[in-house]
Amino acid sequence: MGNFGRVPVGIVGASGYGGVQLVRLLMDHPEVELVYLGGESSVGKSFASLYPHLAHAVKLSIEEVDPEVIARRCEVVFLSMPNGLACRFVPTLLEKGCKVLDLSADYRFRNLTTYTTWYGVERSDRTTADTAVYGLPELYRDRISEAQLVGCPGSYPTASLLALSPLLKQGLIVPETAIVDAKSGTSGGGREAKTYLLLAEADNSLAPYSVVRHRHTPEIEQICSDLAGHEVTVQFTPHLIPIVRGTLATVYATLRDPGLVGDDLTTIYTAFYRNSPWIKVCESGIYPQTKWAAGSNLCYIGVEVDPRTGRVIVMSAIDNLIKGQAGQAIQCLNIMMGWDETLGLPKMGFYP
Amino acid sequence: MGNFGRVPVGIVGASGYGGVQLVRLLMDHPEVELVYLGGESSVGKSFASLYPHLAHAVKLSIEEVDPEVIARRCEVVFLSMPNGLACRFVPTLLEKGCKVLDLSADYRFRNLTTYTTWYGVERSDRTTADTAVYGLPELYRDRISEAQLVGCPGSYPTASLLALSPLLKQGLIVPETAIVDAKSGTSGGGREAKTYLLLAEADNSLAPYSVVRHRHTPEIEQICSDLAGHEVTVQFTPHLIPIVRGTLATVYATLRDPGLVGDDLTTIYTAFYRNSPWIKVCESGIYPQTKWAAGSNLCYIGVEVDPRTGRVIVMSAIDNLIKGQAGQAIQCLNIMMGWDETLGLPKMGFYP
Amino acid sequence: MGNFGRVPVGIVGASGYGGVQLVRLLMDHPEVELVYLGGESSVGKSFASLYPHLAHAVKLSIEEVDPEVIARRCEVVFLSMPNGLACRFVPTLLEKGCKVLDLSADYRFRNLTTYTTWYGVERSDRTTADTAVYGLPELYRDRISEAQLVGCPGSYPTASLLALSPLLKQGLIVPETAIVDAKSGTSGGGREAKTYLLLAEADNSLAPYSVVRHRHTPEIEQICSDLAGHEVTVQFTPHLIPIVRGTLATVYATLRDPGLVGDDLTTIYTAFYRNSPWIKVCESGIYPQTKWAAGSNLCYIGVEVDPRTGRVIVMSAIDNLIKGQAGQAIQCLNIMMGWDETLGLPKMGFYP
Amino acid sequence: MGNFGRVPVGIVGASGYGGVQLVRLLMDHPEVELVYLGGESSVGKSFASLYPHLAHAVKLSIEEVDPEVIARRCEVVFLSMPNGLACRFVPTLLEKGCKVLDLSADYRFRNLTTYTTWYGVERSDRTTADTAVYGLPELYRDRISEAQLVGCPGSYPTASLLALSPLLKQGLIVPETAIVDAKSGTSGGGREAKTYLLLAEADNSLAPYSVVRHRHTPEIEQICSDLAGHEVTVQFTPHLIPIVRGTLATVYATLRDPGLVGDDLTTIYTAFYRNSPWIKVCESGIYPQTKWAAGSNLCYIGVEVDPRTGRVIVMSAIDNLIKGQAGQAIQCLNIMMGWDETLGLPKMGFYP
Repeated sequence: MGNFGRVPVGIVGASGYGGVQLVRLLMDHPEVELVYLGGESSVGKSFASLYPHLAHAVKLSIEEVDPEVIARRCEVVFLSMPNGLACRFVPTLLEKGCKVLDLSADYRFRNLTTYTTWYGVERSDRTTADTAVYGLPELYRDRISEAQLVGCPGSYPTASLLALSPLLKQGLIVPETAIVDAKSGTSGGGREAKTYLLLAEADNSLAPYSVVRHRHTPEIEQICSDLAGHEVTVQFTPHLIPIVRGTLATVYATLRDPGLVGDDLTTIYTAFYRNSPWIKVCESGIYPQTKWAAGSNLCYIGVEVDPRTGRVIVMSAIDNLIKGQAGQAIQCLNIMMGWDETLGLPKMGFYP
Repeated sequence: MGNFGRVPVGIVGASGYGGVQLVRLLMDHPEVELVYLGGESSVGKSFASLYPHLAHAVKLSIEEVDPEVIARRCEVVFLSMPNGLACRFVPTLLEKGCKVLDLSADYRFRNLTTYTTWYGVERSDRTTADTAVYGLPELYRDRISEAQLVGCPGSYPTASLLALSPLLKQGLIVPETAIVDAKSGTSGGGREAKTYLLLAEADNSLAPYSVVRHRHTPEIEQICSDLAGHEVTVQFTPHLIPIVRGTLATVYATLRDPGLVGDDLTTIYTAFYRNSPWIKVCESGIYPQTKWAAGSNLCYIGVEVDPRTGRVIVMSAIDNLIKGQAGQAIQCLNIMMGWDETLGLPKMGFYP
Repeated sequence: MGNFGRVPVGIVGASGYGGVQLVRLLMDHPEVELVYLGGESSVGKSFASLYPHLAHAVKLSIEEVDPEVIARRCEVVFLSMPNGLACRFVPTLLEKGCKVLDLSADYRFRNLTTYTTWYGVERSDRTTADTAVYGLPELYRDRISEAQLVGCPGSYPTASLLALSPLLKQGLIVPETAIVDAKSGTSGGGREAKTYLLLAEADNSLAPYSVVRHRHTPEIEQICSDLAGHEVTVQFTPHLIPIVRGTLATVYATLRDPGLVGDDLTTIYTAFYRNSPWIKVCESGIYPQTKWAAGSNLCYIGVEVDPRTGRVIVMSAIDNLIKGQAGQAIQCLNIMMGWDETLGLPKMGFYP
Repeated sequence: MGNFGRVPVGIVGASGYGGVQLVRLLMDHPEVELVYLGGESSVGKSFASLYPHLAHAVKLSIEEVDPEVIARRCEVVFLSMPNGLACRFVPTLLEKGCKVLDLSADYRFRNLTTYTTWYGVERSDRTTADTAVYGLPELYRDRISEAQLVGCPGSYPTASLLALSPLLKQGLIVPETAIVDAKSGTSGGGREAKTYLLLAEADNSLAPYSVVRHRHTPEIEQICSDLAGHEVTVQFTPHLIPIVRGTLATVYATLRDPGLVGDDLTTIYTAFYRNSPWIKVCESGIYPQTKWAAGSNLCYIGVEVDPRTGRVIVMSAIDNLIKGQAGQAIQCLNIMMGWDETLGLPKMGFYP
């Protein structure tokens, strides 16, 4: 049998964009076999009825979400549901021995009070949440390798934190000067029909939103504080951009040492990510574009220093559905399973 | 008072894209004053809450749709509602003396049986429907000038018929060979949220739909039959294109006289539309693009003959929301009121 | 004669996007008559051969650029050429009595040394340059009204300065904390073929460029310094966005008074722009989108305060080809001629 | 050595979009090793300087094009150059024993007179051209398996012929009624800067071009005639669409047997392509979209019959850079080498 020895995996919430990326990437992964797709609104439908272009490749249908049943069939479960749902199923899945990768916000917070404040969901699974590891492998590779439950960050925190981490970890900037001006494509808003995501509304436009109150702010701050060793407040402003996939973060911060130049920073970033195969630090004077990353699990980072202002400007570009969602979860899985971190993930964007 | 002597007009169904175009164009029209906006789902809301960027220019709110009240306040009423609704209000509006321009399909059909077959709406207003004139001024200018009720065609029939009319009227083609391959932007699908109109779905794609069964087929055929003097069947295939505004029809038909060349046809088209200020026939060898028309009430037409196949190929490009919707209705109004046909309508596209 | 009494105007550099917008807007302007189009590479060509969709509306051809001849025929001249060319013609045009509106960088700088440093063009017209007024009417309306030569700013400085001015003028922020993260569509790059502006390259992407060294930086700083009363350094980062028209500036700065809230700022902005008909300050909690402005001469401004960080975030959205280029020049002309500032300019965007 | 036993391959003309797709796909192909990149304008440059996002993956530089040298290093050569260049190198490459896959028009024509008429290039390599096989595997799989030289069709002929073949081969239609209304994205125009391919020009537009005289017409007719067994003339009209990648052909033809229904045709198509793993015939009532194919080597085909007109409408959607270019060449290589036809090629599009 062709799939002898492959690890059986399942996806709950397979109908959205995160789901379909997981399906596509997992179908190509050499060590896993996709055996279960679960959902709510689409139960009983074939996956092919949701994505007709995959009819030849995916024969599964959407099944009910019963954690007991899932645990019997799957060794690994990806959860790609709206915030506030994963926490209902995860305790059972863990108890039954599954490894769980959650793509929602439910297990990204160390402090559930913060989660409840920003997401409005009361939680009774504190013990479970305490065991979760934040699924950004470039920062938490070791903890992920030993985790049973990983809460994977989405595209904004991923792009923001990969840009900010070397600066904070090494104390190069004044933390409270950090500003993240972030831009993202409309697929990040999901596949559910919403007026502001219509092509006629979003195309040929450019729109800031959730200014000073986006829910990814406390998530970014939590990790920044971790890196800095003290509480850090970050200015985070997201913008909707008329592209399908891609997230760019432009980060500004004031350097502690005004003598540092661009090349110094490039060297520091290159060293910081030396063992991170998915991070590509651009040569000095080269700035990343989202198109470069589209279709791959890569994050491209460009660094510049402005000697006039004493600021560092860092730009990071990812595919929001891959490194910012499905690919990152699979990267985490690779680490959890002891596989090569790059296994089964696309290494080159589909440019143009 | 600045608006002394202006004709009071109202719009029912002002919240959609057709509505907002009507608002914008009527605000700029020198002979009318917009005094009433009506709707269903948005009753009580300010128009500015639906379109914040017009807050400075439009102070009206959406009111209930009571034809008696409308008729007291408006001399002219534009109806921009889903199919099957206008026919409920029009008889009263006419009776009270209003001039009515309906942008839905309700008053486009001479034969209500055809309407009911394709739209699934039973109708009891046959006498009213019999008085309606088809609102394509380039073909029915005289009748429109005397009409009280005009059923304005949408973008597909407008582009298709403006391309086909000279050929049929002058017996230049074998009618049953007529094929219309039509392409249109997503604003034609309206402002209501639908998955297939999301930027993430529609952008960077190209999708045929309603093949062999689109509801504009019988409407196109009705007018073609009128022009040809006998029943004509037309092949009509629409495609969704990732642009906001614009409709292009590419029309194929076999010439009766294989000796005609492109220049002959260009001359014939130019003569046919000599008195139609909104039709621009391109020089030989020039083909129209939708971007040329975007923002104007113009229809650009290019004609080519293939001596190898004996076919004529006609391409017509319009802005689906202006010449294909709101602008055309205002053009009809100008004619009904005895004003210059071009009054208050944009004569140059906003290229690029 | 229909144009009796109209002011004869000419455009040098009519073939680009700035030029075609000027043509379109000036054709619609009730007080001027477009009588001359000049250029270099297209001399002798009809304007219609460059923009076939305007063949019906514009009958002029591109003529040689001889300032003596231009001055005999035109009372007003718009110059829309690459940087470094206008300065060759302007002294003669002024001497012959023309009013001149230059859309290039040549007459935007008070200090020609700064100009030469950033643009690499030596200048011998210091006396002329000293008479130029910076063409941002919201700041320099009075001086423009008396000017014979106006150097109009492009889209980035316009959006940036309209967002920053109230803060600097009233001393509300710490000037050196000002950061402008700017985004603009590809029409700003002009109509000449360049690889990075190809649809296949720019679409579905998002690219920072000229980080820490864009030539609009010193121009922005010059005006900011003017407003602040001392030298101000601004961080300016432009991004290329896959839209045709539109510029958005997202501005960050630290408030001197941490007690100010968003509503305070909205009130301050509304007051500051009370007499500026083209500026629309959004209600609290509403953020502007470039689509709102597209097609109009409006600038929409939204203001937000982050009490957590003590920063103000200001967002300004314009159509880069209108308020950021051709429309602004015409607005300046209106002021220079003593006409209403809004004359002949589009007051509503062509949404969607 | 990791690549022990892999077949060494080279690409001439690697700098364009066809080239970069070949690079990306060949890097992922398990049986080949990319050892040579050649070009003219970029000789001496690193591939990474042309495509910085691939700097980590592709270490090769662009070398001079010397067929003797190429033949010493490569067993297989892909030629991706402008028309009229491949024919200079191919005779030598073949003589030295290379297998050659040409992506230009040079080896697609059985009749070099037709080639010279449409491409304006005189040819002296008739003997070589006579040995070339047309690289559309679904029609010429057997001949490709024995060929040393394959002339691969581009996206328009591929989409058109895959839609038309079953109809012509089985005599189901009146051949002279065949009309192909084709639409394609701008990447088909290449990476060289041309004004009409600028985002500002092509975006939000839709433009027919080369009407009745596109150079793919004789190529399509050659194969159609082959299938029909007699000379066939086809109406072919291309349109430029604002998408990066994707080609859709909408094909119209009159059925000989008016009794056939849509399901019959779907069955016929499914049977015709039974052994063609890259062709996916859609279920009845489902029409293909280019987005489905984007990123894969698949061709999706939908079939519909209009009983009112007696016509069949066939829609085929491909990724113009993969099945319409680089992927198809690799598919041919797989067949030439006796490998599985699907080896190393993407089986699922990167939707959305």
